[in-house]
Amino acid sequence: MARWEPNAAERLARAALDLFAERGYEDTTVIDIAQRAGLGKTTFFRHFQDKREVLFGGTETDDLLITAIATAPAEASPLDAVSRALEAAGQAIFTPARREFVIRRQAVISANPELQEREALKDGRITAAMAEALGHRGVAEVEARVAAQLGALASRIALERWSQADSDEDFGAIARQALTEMRAIRAR
Amino acid sequence: MARWEPNAAERLARAALDLFAERGYEDTTVIDIAQRAGLGKTTFFRHFQDKREVLFGGTETDDLLITAIATAPAEASPLDAVSRALEAAGQAIFTPARREFVIRRQAVISANPELQEREALKDGRITAAMAEALGHRGVAEVEARVAAQLGALASRIALERWSQADSDEDFGAIARQALTEMRAIRAR
Repeated sequence: MARWEPNAAERLARAALDLFAERGYEDTTVIDIAQRAGLGKTTFFRHFQDKREVLFGGTETDDLLITAIATAPAEASPLDAVSRALEAAGQAIFTPARREFVIRRQAVISANPELQEREALKDGRITAAMAEALGHRGVAEVEARVAAQLGALASRIALERWSQADSDEDFGAIARQALTEMRAIRAR
Repeated sequence: MARWEPNAAERLARAALDLFAERGYEDTTVIDIAQRAGLGKTTFFRHFQDKREVLFGGTETDDLLITAIATAPAEASPLDAVSRALEAAGQAIFTPARREFVIRRQAVISANPELQEREALKDGRITAAMAEALGHRGVAEVEARVAAQLGALASRIALERWSQADSDEDFGAIARQALTEMRAIRAR
């Protein structure tokens, strides 16, 4: 098996995380981050618009979720399509190999109001993008927004549980379980 | 009927809104805002921690929603309690007298990424506070989070519709209607 070689964006994110933990978010510059990653400032700005953005990985997550929703079988319900999106996130983002990184990243975000704001904005945009992708499947507006919002909540709950669970638990399975619990509430 | 006399926080918010529209958010300082409102910088910081915060009115909205949830009848379902919270918001915040202000405020926020971030963070915190208030009513965690999230979405949809509707339409009634549509989807 080939050694896992992180790409530039991931190397910059990991370097940023180390530096934020070592000297604090405020006292870390973009140049510090690029240097620690063994890259130049220009490379940093090719990937991220500013320092805050380094922990939010560009638009890759959006693309992943939207593609999963778009390619779900025609007969899949809105929540089933959303479930597929969360499973795709489990396969690409919330993997066992990235688990420690994800947990450290969440801890840094939780400790910093500026990062919390950026995360809240990102979450809102991803939710809106999922609703739009459901709309392209012919789902009516309010129903699409409800499904996307429940998907976003299932993702948050799954992330909390996955971070606390044994390291070999599958994020996709935990997310499916959270959505099943939500459906049970809705059925009442 | 007594003339409606805005308080210091509201005067500061209105002055900020005028200035953001006139010269842009970036080129407006806290001192500019306080001066325009006929108040001092100290008064500004007694009400708001920074310039961004001036459009987000402290914790009054949170208190209003949480009180409405806490005082809903014991037999009210989680969504009924949330519906009461939105009606309370309609009576205190999204009133006919404040409609123009609310619409201008949303336009300024939509045009500014920093304000969008703060709004996203506030929305997330209010949603979490509503879920917590439902928890105090004995609602289980996942169900409380689902109801709060659906309430937040109903509030956003209602705000969009209320902003576009005739000026005498009641926000609370529009929010109730949005929640009814959501229940109909859930019942399917």
